[in-house]
Amino acid sequence: MMRTRPLKVALLGCGVVGSEVARIMTTHADDLTARIGAPVELAGVAVRRPDRVREGIAPELITTDATALVKRGDIDVVVEVIGGIEPARSLITTAFEHGASVVSANKALLAQDGAALHAAAEQHGKDLYYEAAVAGAIPLVRPLRESLAGDKINRVMGIVNGTTNFILDKMDSTGAGYQEALDEATALGYAEADPTADVEGFDAAAKAAILAGIAFHTRVRLDDVYREGMTEVTAADFASAKEMGCTIKLLAICERAEDGASVTARVHPAMIPLSHPLASVRGAYNAVFVESDAAGQLMFYGPGAGGSPTASAVLGDLVAVCRNRIGGATGPGESAYAALPVSPMGDVVTRYHISLDVADKPGVLAQVATVFAEHGVSIDTVRQSGKDGEASLVVVTHRASDAALTGTVEALRKLDTVRGVASIMRVEGE
Amino acid sequence: MMRTRPLKVALLGCGVVGSEVARIMTTHADDLTARIGAPVELAGVAVRRPDRVREGIAPELITTDATALVKRGDIDVVVEVIGGIEPARSLITTAFEHGASVVSANKALLAQDGAALHAAAEQHGKDLYYEAAVAGAIPLVRPLRESLAGDKINRVMGIVNGTTNFILDKMDSTGAGYQEALDEATALGYAEADPTADVEGFDAAAKAAILAGIAFHTRVRLDDVYREGMTEVTAADFASAKEMGCTIKLLAICERAEDGASVTARVHPAMIPLSHPLASVRGAYNAVFVESDAAGQLMFYGPGAGGSPTASAVLGDLVAVCRNRIGGATGPGESAYAALPVSPMGDVVTRYHISLDVADKPGVLAQVATVFAEHGVSIDTVRQSGKDGEASLVVVTHRASDAALTGTVEALRKLDTVRGVASIMRVEGE
Repeated sequence: MMRTRPLKVALLGCGVVGSEVARIMTTHADDLTARIGAPVELAGVAVRRPDRVREGIAPELITTDATALVKRGDIDVVVEVIGGIEPARSLITTAFEHGASVVSANKALLAQDGAALHAAAEQHGKDLYYEAAVAGAIPLVRPLRESLAGDKINRVMGIVNGTTNFILDKMDSTGAGYQEALDEATALGYAEADPTADVEGFDAAAKAAILAGIAFHTRVRLDDVYREGMTEVTAADFASAKEMGCTIKLLAICERAEDGASVTARVHPAMIPLSHPLASVRGAYNAVFVESDAAGQLMFYGPGAGGSPTASAVLGDLVAVCRNRIGGATGPGESAYAALPVSPMGDVVTRYHISLDVADKPGVLAQVATVFAEHGVSIDTVRQSGKDGEASLVVVTHRASDAALTGTVEALRKLDTVRGVASIMRVEGE
Repeated sequence: MMRTRPLKVALLGCGVVGSEVARIMTTHADDLTARIGAPVELAGVAVRRPDRVREGIAPELITTDATALVKRGDIDVVVEVIGGIEPARSLITTAFEHGASVVSANKALLAQDGAALHAAAEQHGKDLYYEAAVAGAIPLVRPLRESLAGDKINRVMGIVNGTTNFILDKMDSTGAGYQEALDEATALGYAEADPTADVEGFDAAAKAAILAGIAFHTRVRLDDVYREGMTEVTAADFASAKEMGCTIKLLAICERAEDGASVTARVHPAMIPLSHPLASVRGAYNAVFVESDAAGQLMFYGPGAGGSPTASAVLGDLVAVCRNRIGGATGPGESAYAALPVSPMGDVVTRYHISLDVADKPGVLAQVATVFAEHGVSIDTVRQSGKDGEASLVVVTHRASDAALTGTVEALRKLDTVRGVASIMRVEGE
């Protein structure tokens, strides 16, 4: 069964992930050969800084000309771990044109141009695998698109960004404010110098787009994902959450509408009950909760980032793509047949926790309650506390659409007796 | 891309799982067609009791002659959900001989005869998939054999039997004894009238054999798995566990030895810290914790049994096998190239919690400690409590081999001052 010609791999990028991929390809060469059915060899490594010492990689494999590498024609699999839109997109497309299959860890690119890349792969009869693009080492793309291929997925809800989970977990456990927790995350290497992509939810939104696309067999682009960062979550929000028996997580939530005719995808901070499995996901770990018709509730948990975990996912894909290549087959491509419309955020239905600063005088609660009623938002609980003529009113609603809640809040702001809306947070996972 | 000839499926067994497979094949026919690339049709259903009403299944599909069904020659995929060794084994082998691929949920058969079945599948160039055989709906077989194919798995530790987890969770949360908790599990339908397979660990041992085989690329048979049931776990054990900040779970543990040269597989009750992710797995849920070189710690969680969840796993396999068939390919077969020896239980190294009833007089602790030392078992903590001339001594050890611990206990029993060994429990997950 063993064929002798080695499969040739071109590695694009040799940073934290790429160097780990190269290392494991060397140290675990015998295992990879046995599992693939043929040896697999590193045929070239495209880097930006060729002068850097790269332990364990033969210097003659290093090149700065990534385009020439993917055009060589003898490359079986291109592993793209450079990230970003360009030149990654052009290189992947060129790779397909020159006969290679592709393994990518590029969430931003997949979220933005997944459809075009899948089309290019299919046109050339090649594989495009990207387990590492979502939640690092956690097997998620393959379980969603293969294990659950006979089921109907209704919701995917997860913690898919380790940096923000580290910060929120720190705020929860120590009572720290956002800035203090961010500073610690930065000092420990969990947050980048510019943390925008993480804390503003861009990274999570890209993953939500990819997950929603796979789960619902529908194209979901990054622009379709509602996104709200977690920079405005306060210690006071955590105190409110605790009173409700909740904690706060930055969640990516992909849902099928109750009538099944549309889907939504969103990223925002949310309160979840402490009893929910996602509530106990600590530090920089990721976890994704999946609900389907037949399987029920599943959860996948593990490290969501880092060189080794991401390399594990890349290498799992590499083995699959190599096996497909030897067998003359390709794995599952894009599945977007359902083509469901992606509804705007206004259509999302969930519960809300609203903190209002109000005048402490008779009739205020009646006024506030009337505004909720007028907008069709049913109130579950109200908690009022006040001193010195000022009062705080915490309202938790039943399920209502985001549009109805937005209308309610706009009207509340116009009331003379409402001094301010201190915070609005969605309540999920119940 | 769509071919028109439908793929024909023969269903062997139409009980809780089989009827759910048939139902979903009908209700989700359009989705399955889109995901497979061809329609899939139920071509026959083999049952023992043909007179029973089977809603949604055309009566002409029902047969009692399973052998004739798998021999028809026009069957693409045989779905075996009858369980047990025979006639399942003969039917699967016959199916391969007559050109069909097989999806099975049969853990007992896979654990006992997996190698022979894989060989038959390979000989005939057919697929053998069995995601449903381990942990129901939880994607586990595919992640282990595909997602982690580029990684090195060192440990698989999980709760793979829902019945026993329900009983232990009940004992933990209510203080009930084993019999009381079992009675409740039986009344609620979580335990069968004869619960032996579950409570004695046979079911979990079969799953451990399958998981160890996949994780370590080594053949592990049911006979290789050390097995200890949970019928002797007492309310007192739970009280002891609580004092240590632990709970008790029935665990299946598959480990690579520290030198990497051998593996072990075992099923027994064990104390695990409350902080471990497996400690919070409630009721009849299953969860499996996987540790690998590159990915680190992963966990997979979900319903481990039941008609719908098991059907979800069967249908995921069915889609994959159908896709392979259309593409003229087969998925990954048995991977046993590593062929590591399976070490006996005596070689397993872990920690132990031992409760002794001893005479309450000076020198007893010194005697007991000497016995541990003579057998090379290092003591971590000792807790002594006594009244009326009798005392209880709880010893928690550092890591030691099962053989050393067994020798220690034998020697302890011979001490005049030791009245009895009340319980010995392993401590895992630290």
